[in-house]
Amino acid sequence: MRIVRFQLESEVSFGLVEDQQVVQLAQFPGISPEPTGQVFDIKDVTLLAPVEPSKIVCAGLNYTAHAAELDQPLPTEPLVFLKPSSAIIASGETIVIPQQSGQVELEVELAMVVSQTAKNVSVEDAADYILGYTIANDVTARDLQFSDLQWARSKAFDTFCPLGPWIETDLDFSKQYVESRINGELRQREGIDNMIFNPLELFSYISQNMTLNPQDVILTGSPSGISKISRGDLVECEISGIGVLSNPVA
Amino acid sequence: MRIVRFQLESEVSFGLVEDQQVVQLAQFPGISPEPTGQVFDIKDVTLLAPVEPSKIVCAGLNYTAHAAELDQPLPTEPLVFLKPSSAIIASGETIVIPQQSGQVELEVELAMVVSQTAKNVSVEDAADYILGYTIANDVTARDLQFSDLQWARSKAFDTFCPLGPWIETDLDFSKQYVESRINGELRQREGIDNMIFNPLELFSYISQNMTLNPQDVILTGSPSGISKISRGDLVECEISGIGVLSNPVA
Repeated sequence: MRIVRFQLESEVSFGLVEDQQVVQLAQFPGISPEPTGQVFDIKDVTLLAPVEPSKIVCAGLNYTAHAAELDQPLPTEPLVFLKPSSAIIASGETIVIPQQSGQVELEVELAMVVSQTAKNVSVEDAADYILGYTIANDVTARDLQFSDLQWARSKAFDTFCPLGPWIETDLDFSKQYVESRINGELRQREGIDNMIFNPLELFSYISQNMTLNPQDVILTGSPSGISKISRGDLVECEISGIGVLSNPVA
Repeated sequence: MRIVRFQLESEVSFGLVEDQQVVQLAQFPGISPEPTGQVFDIKDVTLLAPVEPSKIVCAGLNYTAHAAELDQPLPTEPLVFLKPSSAIIASGETIVIPQQSGQVELEVELAMVVSQTAKNVSVEDAADYILGYTIANDVTARDLQFSDLQWARSKAFDTFCPLGPWIETDLDFSKQYVESRINGELRQREGIDNMIFNPLELFSYISQNMTLNPQDVILTGSPSGISKISRGDLVECEISGIGVLSNPVA
C-alpha cells in the first residue's frame, strides 16, 4: 500500500494511491485506512511530505563506511539525535543553502513512520508499530556539524529534511538499497542490510528512550559517499521498493 | 498577565488567571487573548503544561560557572540542542528515573514561549515574538550525556521536561534569579543577568537557524549547582517573578 498526504484546494488529507488515483482517507491511517468515498486523479492533487511528525528521531553513524569517512568510532549502541519538524519539505520542494554554511551535504536515509503510540517495544514487536517506510534526506551543514559541540544546529535549518514522496507499507527493507544522485551522478549506494543496527533494532532502542507518537519519523542513518550540494543542483534520493525523493537546491 | 493551559472534564483550553479565577480563552493567545466568556474557579480545573510545542530548542552551557563544572569550554556562539515534546510534564507530575541511568540530575532554566511564527528575527525585535516566560527543568541523565556522542538521548526520556506552572507575560528577566531545591535544600541559585547570551540574543540566533512556531519553547540554559535527583525526592524549580515548578521523583 502506498500512502500519501495531499492537498486539494485548501484541504489537506491522507490518501491511498491506486494506479493513477488517490483514495481520500478520513485521517492518518495509523492502524487501518478509513476511506471517505472521495477519489481524485493523482494529477489533480499536490503531494505533501507524507506526515506531520511531533518529532524526527535520527540514528547517526549507522553504516560502517560512513562512520569511517567522518573519522568517527563505530557506535556500540545506536547514536540518537533529533531534527525539528520545521525542517521538513516535500519531494519537489527546494533545499535552501543557508548563509551560515559553506559545506552543505546530502545524506539519503531510509525513514520509518510510526503507526501508533509506542513505548518500550521489543525488536520482535517493532514491526507492529511501523506504518511503513519512506525516503529522507538528512541534509547537514558539515562545517557546522564539526565546529558545534552538538549536531542539532547543523541539521535543523529549514528545508534540511526532504521527506517522501510517499509511505510504502509493504517493504522487505533487508532486500533494498539506498542511493543518492546529484545532477544524475551517483554519489551514494549501499544495501540496507549493511546497517550496523537494523530498523527494528533502532525502533526498539528509541522506544526505550522516549514515547513515539503516530506520524513520528525515525531516520536510520546514511551510507558513505556524502557529498556537497550547491545552488542549482538537483538532488535525488532513491530507495528500491519505494521510489525517488527529488529536490532542487537554491 | 498569567497564562495557563488547563483541563476541565475532557476539555483542554488556554486561560488567563485573575485572582482565583481562570478566564477561558478561545485558543492559544499568540497575539491577543480572546475570552470565550466562561470563567472557572482555579480550584476546579487541572493545570497542564502551559503549551504543546512543535519543538523545544535549548541553549547549553549558557552560564559561566555551569560550563566550568561540566569541564566544557565557554561557547563563543550559543550551543543549540533539542528536546522532544514527548518529554514534557506539568508541575505536580512525576519525574521518572529510567533504568538506563544511574545519575539523573536537575537543571532549572528560564523558558521562553514563542507567540507567533518567527524566522530571522533581530535581537531588537525578538521581544515581539515572545509571549512570555515560564520555568523548565532540563532533566538530564548525566552519565549518558557523557557516554553518548550526542546529548539527545540523555535529555529525551519521558518526563525529562517539567514545564510550567504558567506563562508570565510581564517579566523583566534581567532582574530575576533562577533557583532549584531538592527536598527544600537549595541546589542552584543565580541571577539571569549572569547568562552568557541573554534570552533575546538566543531567540534571534535560533530564529536564524530554524522557523519557530507559536507555542514552541526555548530553554535558556542552567546555572551551576546541578545535582543528582533520586526516587522519593521533591524537586522545586523557582524563578522570581514567575513562581515554582514542583515535581516529585519516582
